[in-house]
Amino acid sequence: MSNPLDHLVHELSKLPAIGEKTAMRLALHILRQSPEYGKNLARALAETVGRVGFCERCFHLATEKLCPICQNTQRNQSVLCVVEEVADLLAIEKTRRHQGVYHVLHGSLSPIDGIGPDDLKIRELLVRLENEPIQEIIFALNPNVNGDVTSVYLSKLIKPFGVSLTKLASGIPVGGHIEFIDENTLSRAMEKRVAF
Amino acid sequence: MSNPLDHLVHELSKLPAIGEKTAMRLALHILRQSPEYGKNLARALAETVGRVGFCERCFHLATEKLCPICQNTQRNQSVLCVVEEVADLLAIEKTRRHQGVYHVLHGSLSPIDGIGPDDLKIRELLVRLENEPIQEIIFALNPNVNGDVTSVYLSKLIKPFGVSLTKLASGIPVGGHIEFIDENTLSRAMEKRVAF
Repeated sequence: MSNPLDHLVHELSKLPAIGEKTAMRLALHILRQSPEYGKNLARALAETVGRVGFCERCFHLATEKLCPICQNTQRNQSVLCVVEEVADLLAIEKTRRHQGVYHVLHGSLSPIDGIGPDDLKIRELLVRLENEPIQEIIFALNPNVNGDVTSVYLSKLIKPFGVSLTKLASGIPVGGHIEFIDENTLSRAMEKRVAF
Repeated sequence: MSNPLDHLVHELSKLPAIGEKTAMRLALHILRQSPEYGKNLARALAETVGRVGFCERCFHLATEKLCPICQNTQRNQSVLCVVEEVADLLAIEKTRRHQGVYHVLHGSLSPIDGIGPDDLKIRELLVRLENEPIQEIIFALNPNVNGDVTSVYLSKLIKPFGVSLTKLASGIPVGGHIEFIDENTLSRAMEKRVAF
């Protein structure tokens, strides 16, 4: 007997941190609910994937060419915050302490994992530095080895542009992930940012 | 700015053990993959929910009126194994030690959670006892308070039918979940089942 859930379990188990047993639990949970529940989830998935892409300028999520932050002329175009992932950007937005714009690298340098400069949105950042009125770049990268390596690498590339370079204030626990830091700590770190 | 992921995150966070932060991580992971990935997952969900229901006889998953086990005339119709959830049935099927049929209660009695006999497929089990040539009922319920309460309650209802009642052999760790027990332990427990 082929299990009628196999296909769904297989697709669910591709999600991060979801093994085959957890995928089976999720699938059975979905089937125990009303059929509307699973259909809503399927619709939300298909719609989101079809509708949401990445901003051409900062590589945040976007449903148009530019994301809402880049479209917002009220944002301070001279202060650019560099983050590794969209989740980090969302965490910082929640603090409401950054009125400028962003640049999402989509990862950090990791020689061990074979992730080099060409795998990140670094070239795109340099193009922005040439064309936009940027005066300060804030590094909001994860306080771990990869984040530090990325900061040092970027700082060398950015130096010739003569912009002010800052990084989030210490207070962020070493080895932590920006995405999971509480809002207050993150707010303070943004306010007390220091020269890089 | 309303986050274009909000709807998907909201739907994902309804899944068991998936909070808002995990839902956000899953949503971002899905968007980082090729669009095909999210669309495949959506299709698998919609198809499974639309296609899979429950067997009219034993309440296992079924894509027709009866599940493949109930349709299989090779299975021993006189030995019926009672389980709490579909996941338990699937775990027992994997051991290949049960050649009979099943009855899925879809839960266990839990006065604290307000789950009484009418919330489970108990009436349907008694109807089967009246109409089917059942000679032995094996209780494969979780070895915890709710499973024990359910076994005792069911045994009183089943006694008048004069069928033999057994339960899985001890060896199942107390407080554990059948779904997560390794195949060998579960095989032994099925072979060494004792009179209830």
